[in-house]
Amino acid sequence: MNTMINKPKLAVIGIGYVGLPLAISLSNFYQVKAYDINKSRILSLKRNYDITGEFSSSDLKRGKFIDFTSNQADLFNTNIFFITVPTPIDKNNKPDLRNLIHATKLVARNLKKKSIVIYESTVFPGCTEEVCLPIIENISKYKLNKDFYLAYSPERINPGKSKYKLKNTVKVISASNQYSLKTINKIYKKICSKTHLAESIKIAEAAKIIENTQRDLNIALINELSIIFHKMDIDINKILNAASTKWNFIKFQPGLVGGHCIGVDPYYLTYKSKQLQYNPKVILSGRKINDSMGFYVAKKLTSFFKKKRKKLFKSKILVLGVAFKENCSDMRNSRIFDTINYLKKKGANVDVYDPLVPINFLKRKTKKYLVNLNTKNFYDAIIISVAHNEFSSMGIKKIKSMLKKDGLIFDLKSIFSKKETDWQL
Amino acid sequence: MNTMINKPKLAVIGIGYVGLPLAISLSNFYQVKAYDINKSRILSLKRNYDITGEFSSSDLKRGKFIDFTSNQADLFNTNIFFITVPTPIDKNNKPDLRNLIHATKLVARNLKKKSIVIYESTVFPGCTEEVCLPIIENISKYKLNKDFYLAYSPERINPGKSKYKLKNTVKVISASNQYSLKTINKIYKKICSKTHLAESIKIAEAAKIIENTQRDLNIALINELSIIFHKMDIDINKILNAASTKWNFIKFQPGLVGGHCIGVDPYYLTYKSKQLQYNPKVILSGRKINDSMGFYVAKKLTSFFKKKRKKLFKSKILVLGVAFKENCSDMRNSRIFDTINYLKKKGANVDVYDPLVPINFLKRKTKKYLVNLNTKNFYDAIIISVAHNEFSSMGIKKIKSMLKKDGLIFDLKSIFSKKETDWQL
Repeated sequence: MNTMINKPKLAVIGIGYVGLPLAISLSNFYQVKAYDINKSRILSLKRNYDITGEFSSSDLKRGKFIDFTSNQADLFNTNIFFITVPTPIDKNNKPDLRNLIHATKLVARNLKKKSIVIYESTVFPGCTEEVCLPIIENISKYKLNKDFYLAYSPERINPGKSKYKLKNTVKVISASNQYSLKTINKIYKKICSKTHLAESIKIAEAAKIIENTQRDLNIALINELSIIFHKMDIDINKILNAASTKWNFIKFQPGLVGGHCIGVDPYYLTYKSKQLQYNPKVILSGRKINDSMGFYVAKKLTSFFKKKRKKLFKSKILVLGVAFKENCSDMRNSRIFDTINYLKKKGANVDVYDPLVPINFLKRKTKKYLVNLNTKNFYDAIIISVAHNEFSSMGIKKIKSMLKKDGLIFDLKSIFSKKETDWQL
Repeated sequence: MNTMINKPKLAVIGIGYVGLPLAISLSNFYQVKAYDINKSRILSLKRNYDITGEFSSSDLKRGKFIDFTSNQADLFNTNIFFITVPTPIDKNNKPDLRNLIHATKLVARNLKKKSIVIYESTVFPGCTEEVCLPIIENISKYKLNKDFYLAYSPERINPGKSKYKLKNTVKVISASNQYSLKTINKIYKKICSKTHLAESIKIAEAAKIIENTQRDLNIALINELSIIFHKMDIDINKILNAASTKWNFIKFQPGLVGGHCIGVDPYYLTYKSKQLQYNPKVILSGRKINDSMGFYVAKKLTSFFKKKRKKLFKSKILVLGVAFKENCSDMRNSRIFDTINYLKKKGANVDVYDPLVPINFLKRKTKKYLVNLNTKNFYDAIIISVAHNEFSSMGIKKIKSMLKKDGLIFDLKSIFSKKETDWQL
């Protein structure tokens, strides 16, 4: 079997926030087919443009051994598949596995004997073996650990400007047998400085889910504390500063929890748990708070308008930042749209400005997006929703200049000093 | 006013887990009256015996400038009072402020002009100024910041063997004005390597509450995950090991949450929050899970008995450890008694062994406490409830020797390898 290890031919399926850095890293050591179903994404990447803004064109130009493709035929010679497709949730907060199943079928149709199929997408524990494996076996007619191998290694990509990249983040890996585990360990060790060999695929799946669930719940706690301390009229930031001086306190910030990971992954776990007749109360209470924060902000603004005897109807509101995270171009599941839609329903005119989110994407969400800021004394309220560096370097003065005299500044991420703003989360 | 700073006469009111280390530390620099209402506690301390086991008799012998007393008259010359009494909850999980109020009255009756009253007990935000201050002003007829000063510095004592002691833990301090803040800062800086000056008493009160609330909720999450992963038959310890390799994952362990802090403090916050018409869902969901874990363990044991066709009625069960925490003598609010009482109700004979908890205290909780372990092939089940060093060094072999052939080992803190036990939390 060692012939295969010596001639690994790699394909990465799904070239988004996870697949692109993986494919680029791997291409430093192997020939890599970077496949995506989205033809325009592939076209831009071929032209060295990454719409997610994670890689510059010079980064992309360096990739000699990477072949971006939407052509299934290019997968024909692959013997190691990495599946890095998004695993979102549907409207009922249940796992939407359509991308995963689609990618699995694609791989199964192109599967050669002795190949390894590695999943990196976040799933519920059991998904790889209970959902994906039967599809592969049915379509390919191959048997696991005889004709092919399965592996799971959860992605830990941190979008936006972060010091934690693929290279310096420990990679958890798991596989269907020792042979495939060793094989993928060799590959991952080239692109990650450290690997952790999990005892089973289920353990690796569960590890990923609980990482984001823990983060989600901790932010939910801080959001709940923010609500409570607003009622007591105590500044939560000062409380957090004091508490953080304890050796075991973990500093989280209040904020809107969106994106494709932290706000989504816990639902994968609660879905599976409910199937097993256990309704997770702690996890779901956290999800509920975090999913409600966009409305909470809108209601706070509404009550400020009432106090000032201003009307929301026909008011002019500017939202600075709609990405789900600071310095990131991704606005999937961004909760600020709950705020925006609530205010729109009340008749407010809401403009949106986010210099990082591509205009293509903005267009799909709202007609009222701005490409630059050049108004004066115009807005009744400005909501600073995300801590993009651009907003802090813009300065509160510039932001205030766009505001009417009696206008309100809502600084959800406490970018500016409390005195300079009317409300902070 | 500087005359007072130069001649501080200190009293610590409430000589328990918090007051004793504080009084001892202070006595290295000042003459300290260490007052407790409990005469037998004072008597033992005078005889250099600390029933909590935190200080050895030689530690106590060193305290030349400390005067243990139950005599109110000894407080007469005090100008700086530290109140370190317990603030528990009642049967309805509401704050039980009786000790706090009692101590406040005691101090108010003995208050001299220009004195500072410092609270270290954990309370809800607002308690010091809304509950304690009016009592002091009423009884003493003195006015705040004119005749006397108020301060709050939350205790961060970590009972049991811990590397974090008073000296190397940052001390958060707050006071009713700048003068008293400066004065107490000088004093605390002698016994703590670092102080953090909080902007108000409420902020310091809130900081303390959220530290323990965060810890409680994080353990609750891990307990909920433990329940879920037991249903999936995946080893949570292996999942935690894998997840912990991520740079921002915080490793907590499943377990029973008891004691006078983590299991109690969140209720102080939820009490105050409910008063303000906000019902804290996340915090209370965590409390609910943690308060239910003792029963969960009992039910698990019951189901194991059923599977083995053994009867709980007249069965013999040994519980190793009833302290709320490893290497600690304190068993206040220890949730293992939920397990014990459940099993007793089903007719089981439950013996209890804890080498750290003083026999006086054990006696009050159960008749069936052991002073040493010398049975062989005797128990139907042994529950290891706390990770006292003594149990791990005792070894699984010794523990198993006390068990009948078909007996069960429940290792709640995963002290031993999973294979050696029948169930781990």
